[in-house]
Amino acid sequence: MTITITAFERSPDGGKGLARDTRVRWALEEAGLAYEVRLVSFQAMKEPAHLSLHPFGQIPTYEEGDLTLFETGAIVFHIAERHAGLLPADAHARARAITWMFAALNSVEPAILELVTARFQEGDKPWTKERIPLVVDRIRHRLNLLSARLGDADWLDGAFSAGDLMMVSVLLRLRLSGILDEFPTLAAYVARGEARPAYQRAFAAQWAINAAKPVAG
Amino acid sequence: MTITITAFERSPDGGKGLARDTRVRWALEEAGLAYEVRLVSFQAMKEPAHLSLHPFGQIPTYEEGDLTLFETGAIVFHIAERHAGLLPADAHARARAITWMFAALNSVEPAILELVTARFQEGDKPWTKERIPLVVDRIRHRLNLLSARLGDADWLDGAFSAGDLMMVSVLLRLRLSGILDEFPTLAAYVARGEARPAYQRAFAAQWAINAAKPVAG
Repeated sequence: MTITITAFERSPDGGKGLARDTRVRWALEEAGLAYEVRLVSFQAMKEPAHLSLHPFGQIPTYEEGDLTLFETGAIVFHIAERHAGLLPADAHARARAITWMFAALNSVEPAILELVTARFQEGDKPWTKERIPLVVDRIRHRLNLLSARLGDADWLDGAFSAGDLMMVSVLLRLRLSGILDEFPTLAAYVARGEARPAYQRAFAAQWAINAAKPVAG
Repeated sequence: MTITITAFERSPDGGKGLARDTRVRWALEEAGLAYEVRLVSFQAMKEPAHLSLHPFGQIPTYEEGDLTLFETGAIVFHIAERHAGLLPADAHARARAITWMFAALNSVEPAILELVTARFQEGDKPWTKERIPLVVDRIRHRLNLLSARLGDADWLDGAFSAGDLMMVSVLLRLRLSGILDEFPTLAAYVARGEARPAYQRAFAAQWAINAAKPVAG
């Protein structure tokens, strides 16, 4: 059955791989699944046809026969549950890998999203320069704890899993800020994720779409 | 096998049910599972014994035999996967219910967390009064889309599921702000969740712990 995902016609990051379709592409590549991509413009994302697929008017979406999913975590989980390579077979290890997926999305990413919002949606506000250090300190607090838990392990819980895929993807959002470099343990963890052939293929696929299209403005 | 969760010895909300253990209690009640609760002080949450259970030093955690989980979404999913009442049997409907769990935690809650942070961690900052309306507008944007998707349905996708449990729990954080009342469709949805006997039992259980202990200050 053909798998079709949606992605930005022109990603706001100009191809740095930070748009959430990269996470889904990565999972599909780890699972060895072929997929098609339908590109969507910012305008089309807000129109009824796309809203019927994604109620929040975003990308990616996932279509497979008569199943339609949105929300990256759910899509990656759907792939991970059905194909080898992203979730361990042992029931307890599987539950812990799923825990790290949720932790990436609900315990780590919200603090990082605050920084994205501060920079891009409140970048012109008089308080932003003074406020950003507070936002960054809240991120550092989480990263300190995450770094302590990871320790000298390669991955968060045994073998590479969908939990690592999601955590690496979330942490990648920090690379340009320099914050990740303050945590060598986490920077090396992210680099291990990026070095995986499946990530490389996912990155290259989104780069091929976006590299030729400089961000407007 | 005995299930043990952790909860605040004294919840910051004084028993309003907004601490995340309520979400886990609710899932356990929907599934008809007995559980024990170990109360943890703010100080103990930051110490190595608790950090070994929860790397971010928070509650709730979940212990069942030699399985330890943290992260509310993962705990609720673990319960939902193993017991009737929280996930539909049909594979596609199940995938969509899981989608709503992730949507609650990654597409709706981060905007709400920004408001919590603005009020409680930045409440004394000179910019907060002017900034909060921007934060609230971002919440309204998401709620508008969520409300449109829910329409006149009782639940987000067919029968009540763990996706509704999570979305109702996330939206409940807004009740005191008055924002929820701007969206009658969503306010009625939340009220339907609160009216469930399992929610009532979960709320009462956390209330019994916290009502006798006024919040410090």
